[in-house]
Amino acid sequence: MNPEDADLATAALFGALEDPALNSMNFLNEVAIHYPDAIPLAAGRPSEEFFDLADVPRYLDVFCRYLADELGLTGEQVRRTVLQYGRTKGIIHELVAKNVRLDEGIEVDPESVVVTAGCQEAMFLVLRALRADERDVLLAVSPTYVGLTGAARLADLPVRPVRTGEHGVDVADLVAVIRRERAAGRRPRACYVMPDFANPSGLSLDLAARQRLLEVAAAEDVLLVEDNPYGLFHGDAARVPALKALDRHRRVVYLGSFAKTVLPGARVGYVVADQRVAAADGSVGPFADQLSKIKSMVTVNTSPIAQAVVGGKLLAHGCRLADANARERRLYGGNLRRLVAGLAERFPEGGGVTWTAPSGGFFVVVTVPFPVDDELLEVSARDYGVLWTPMGHFYDSATPVRSLRLSCSAVSAEQIDNGLDRLAALIADRRGRSADGAATTV
Amino acid sequence: MNPEDADLATAALFGALEDPALNSMNFLNEVAIHYPDAIPLAAGRPSEEFFDLADVPRYLDVFCRYLADELGLTGEQVRRTVLQYGRTKGIIHELVAKNVRLDEGIEVDPESVVVTAGCQEAMFLVLRALRADERDVLLAVSPTYVGLTGAARLADLPVRPVRTGEHGVDVADLVAVIRRERAAGRRPRACYVMPDFANPSGLSLDLAARQRLLEVAAAEDVLLVEDNPYGLFHGDAARVPALKALDRHRRVVYLGSFAKTVLPGARVGYVVADQRVAAADGSVGPFADQLSKIKSMVTVNTSPIAQAVVGGKLLAHGCRLADANARERRLYGGNLRRLVAGLAERFPEGGGVTWTAPSGGFFVVVTVPFPVDDELLEVSARDYGVLWTPMGHFYDSATPVRSLRLSCSAVSAEQIDNGLDRLAALIADRRGRSADGAATTV
Repeated sequence: MNPEDADLATAALFGALEDPALNSMNFLNEVAIHYPDAIPLAAGRPSEEFFDLADVPRYLDVFCRYLADELGLTGEQVRRTVLQYGRTKGIIHELVAKNVRLDEGIEVDPESVVVTAGCQEAMFLVLRALRADERDVLLAVSPTYVGLTGAARLADLPVRPVRTGEHGVDVADLVAVIRRERAAGRRPRACYVMPDFANPSGLSLDLAARQRLLEVAAAEDVLLVEDNPYGLFHGDAARVPALKALDRHRRVVYLGSFAKTVLPGARVGYVVADQRVAAADGSVGPFADQLSKIKSMVTVNTSPIAQAVVGGKLLAHGCRLADANARERRLYGGNLRRLVAGLAERFPEGGGVTWTAPSGGFFVVVTVPFPVDDELLEVSARDYGVLWTPMGHFYDSATPVRSLRLSCSAVSAEQIDNGLDRLAALIADRRGRSADGAATTV
Repeated sequence: MNPEDADLATAALFGALEDPALNSMNFLNEVAIHYPDAIPLAAGRPSEEFFDLADVPRYLDVFCRYLADELGLTGEQVRRTVLQYGRTKGIIHELVAKNVRLDEGIEVDPESVVVTAGCQEAMFLVLRALRADERDVLLAVSPTYVGLTGAARLADLPVRPVRTGEHGVDVADLVAVIRRERAAGRRPRACYVMPDFANPSGLSLDLAARQRLLEVAAAEDVLLVEDNPYGLFHGDAARVPALKALDRHRRVVYLGSFAKTVLPGARVGYVVADQRVAAADGSVGPFADQLSKIKSMVTVNTSPIAQAVVGGKLLAHGCRLADANARERRLYGGNLRRLVAGLAERFPEGGGVTWTAPSGGFFVVVTVPFPVDDELLEVSARDYGVLWTPMGHFYDSATPVRSLRLSCSAVSAEQIDNGLDRLAALIADRRGRSADGAATTV
């Protein structure tokens, strides 16, 4: 069809529709769909090895029996809770509060929890609430999760990058960015961080870095938005407490996801927002109540059927998802070790190819001696049969990047080995071509 | 707690958090929770009479068998479809397209459908997409659904009221508003309408009004956003075709909900957006693809478990929800007739109390000879034991209103009778007091 025959043009629609941040996920999905036989070292989705359709009715039943037996609801009330419209902040808030206490050491009033349609909605609610006018800006450790950048676009909230340091965040740069923004008349509202096995860097903050970050947040009066989808997949390493568990002054808004620990298909996440907010009428309530107002105009409430499935799994495991995910943790830990060892076997030291070696999470970043872009991904998918993610997708700028992200969550050991062989072939060919190119221009 | 001890103030947050539109639902819910024994003539929720928890696993199973038997998916693919992350535009788009063809006579490519986390998300996606800059405005027939006003606040899109006419929309006023806005340098992008048994007015557009509306939309180059949650509950009246079924030039964006026809607890709605959109790169695709990009940053995708439950009900009824809702239609039709007859019994003609008499839907508007506000609702709930909705909540202004909305969807015949007795007592007392008040001021 000719563009002249169109009914609308993106030029007359929301500007961000042409923004790379909103097109990134579509592009990456399309490459994956177009090359279904390519080995998916790109996908950040959880393993399907333990998926069981019977879990859905089983967990639903566990949750309904809890409503009846533990909470004393009548049959009519149970049906209403699971099948009718319901509480905007959710129906599993008590279980979520118990879960973050047991798994993360976070003590929080269930009234400070908002259950959301996936963690992505939680992100959008927080950013939309924090954006009062055009002076407001968000800080984010760069490279950052593309969903954060996208949610910020929807909330018209500019994102200012903070440098990644040795332990995930360069705290000195954070302070410098805050002061530079303030000097320019802008208001830094919060800094987004993924302290555990970050997507995409794989890096984690050590305890000292976390404490330093909390001090800076208090001293500079900004919030920290902590996103923690991978904390339970810490391999063999000991866990470091979540920022929110260390937060004594309500500086941290905590985002949680059940996509990797229960089921992606439930699309249930949550936000813990215990900041005390004073309203114009003098009343004071948790920030969660403000987020709830926004949620009532985005999704009204999170599907109680989906919440019941998640609630049932929580109940079946005493609200401890760390234990419930022991086999997943072993699977991901084993895959990660195999991936890192496989890189070492294929790329000799000093050869110009380097990589991160996180102790947990899903992701490894590989740096190569040539630029990595979407075109190279297409070549890799078509001619070499392996998918990965160009790191450029995680930077909010068009600067050329020489690295790529590998994911080990949704592949078998054999796929890791074959995928790395294919990646090694691509890198060898591309390096050869760069050398040829260099030779011809001499 | 003292406001001085707060961590944040709403004054430094998103301005709409103090807006009546975002506080309306909370206020109304709180009154209902505070007076649980008051008769709920306020609630717009569907009847719970036919709720059955066994429907959830049953429909899930029907959907999974369809994936395997009809679409030929392997067991692994079925599990992936229902439990893993999935297609942003949804997994039941083919069934939704068939449903709107059979129930509404709307012919649409399934690729123009986006399945959403409730119809509320669909509304937000459309408004966010249409808001390019501060010149853009939305038109809406006033009084209007408060969720529309709230979604518009989140998208920073001002709402301009269009007068309600005899058949739901005053088309001459619509044209006048469009031209006035254009003359002031603004861009009217779309007009929101609920052509069938509108919430809150109960009014429906006749065929001539629908055709006139489509002509105006084409002539003035605005879209129509058609919201149709009550069309199947048309009592004994014959149905008039949906605007989208009459739409020959892709002027209509159609919003659908399964909350009343399948289950509110699934939180599944959809938008049909077949407008052809030209992108900057010269490609042309359905408006649905642009909405999908926004959705990927709001909720990523709609819970496939929830979609599977809705898909199963669609499949169990040959994708015809009109037939599947025959008993609900009879129930609501009977309640509506009882409510209207009950008003006629209690309020004699010429007595200053009037009401609408819709042939379908959930709502009746009662006009009384004194102002109706939130305070009166509290008095009604506390002292008279009956809940209703002050019509002021449906106007985007602070003008005093002398009417209230009654809903008949979630109450029994006995509750309707008792509720009307209580309302009659309130009205009699209030009218007496107004007369006294008038006397003392003479």
